[in-house]
Amino acid sequence: MTEMPIPSMSEFRNYLQFAAEDVFMTTFGERPVFVPPEMSVGGLSAIIGLNGNVSGFFAPHIMPKDACVIAGNMLGDSFAEVDDIVCDAIGEIANMLGGSLKKFSSRNGELFRISIPTIVHGNNYQTYTPKGTEQLLMGVRVLSTQITMQLVIKNASMK
Amino acid sequence: MTEMPIPSMSEFRNYLQFAAEDVFMTTFGERPVFVPPEMSVGGLSAIIGLNGNVSGFFAPHIMPKDACVIAGNMLGDSFAEVDDIVCDAIGEIANMLGGSLKKFSSRNGELFRISIPTIVHGNNYQTYTPKGTEQLLMGVRVLSTQITMQLVIKNASMK
Repeated sequence: MTEMPIPSMSEFRNYLQFAAEDVFMTTFGERPVFVPPEMSVGGLSAIIGLNGNVSGFFAPHIMPKDACVIAGNMLGDSFAEVDDIVCDAIGEIANMLGGSLKKFSSRNGELFRISIPTIVHGNNYQTYTPKGTEQLLMGVRVLSTQITMQLVIKNASMK
Repeated sequence: MTEMPIPSMSEFRNYLQFAAEDVFMTTFGERPVFVPPEMSVGGLSAIIGLNGNVSGFFAPHIMPKDACVIAGNMLGDSFAEVDDIVCDAIGEIANMLGGSLKKFSSRNGELFRISIPTIVHGNNYQTYTPKGTEQLLMGVRVLSTQITMQLVIKNASMK
């Protein structure tokens, strides 16, 4: 990868909005609504590592009942609780969001690559943001569910 | 990145052992002992995304009291509970292990890049291994603590 201009966190915020609109309109046929983010202690998180010209991670966080709604809509099925199928569906949504974020961030060349999602679920955990990083949290409502998208970047531009 | 031979999971097992020996002998001056892995529901995990010619993630998992021992030894201090400093120390160990794993795996060229660690901590969570991936778990004892190292690879060689 060659050196290239690194976006600021406010540029990343725009790209993440574009990504959410892109993925949710394509997948669910519904324009998402942006709301204040809510971080819960527990639920389900799909963590995707980013690296290349920037390093960081992207993670959508979702409550279990909302994960079941999202998975049910994607698969035309109904889920009462989080199982492997629901985890894979949320991983797929995370992968699409990460891919779309990469697409919008990489208009001047590939800014980063994304790893496969690591799914974390449980009723008591938090993610810790490492020192020397900047964090962006964005709440999204779609299909009457709420998703909190977390983007952590190590070397965002200060412009 | 150019195409290159992808290691098998048993080759990755060797590289991960080399990485643990490399990092723990350098950092703590103690040869680690390999033991059966133990996955707990909760604790502290440092998740690092891998991507390039292979995609996946690497995550050391550790119990809170052991995380405090490791951080205390690294920093010449004493910690009674997991705080931001302990999280950063465990992130640094994860980063060293991931970097060393990359070094041993990349003798024929860069096999993957690593992202910054995402630290997850709490007393009730699990990581879910996505479908289509292979997983390797390895227990390591060092400084009388136990660390379970998890490596998940999407496209390991079947040889």
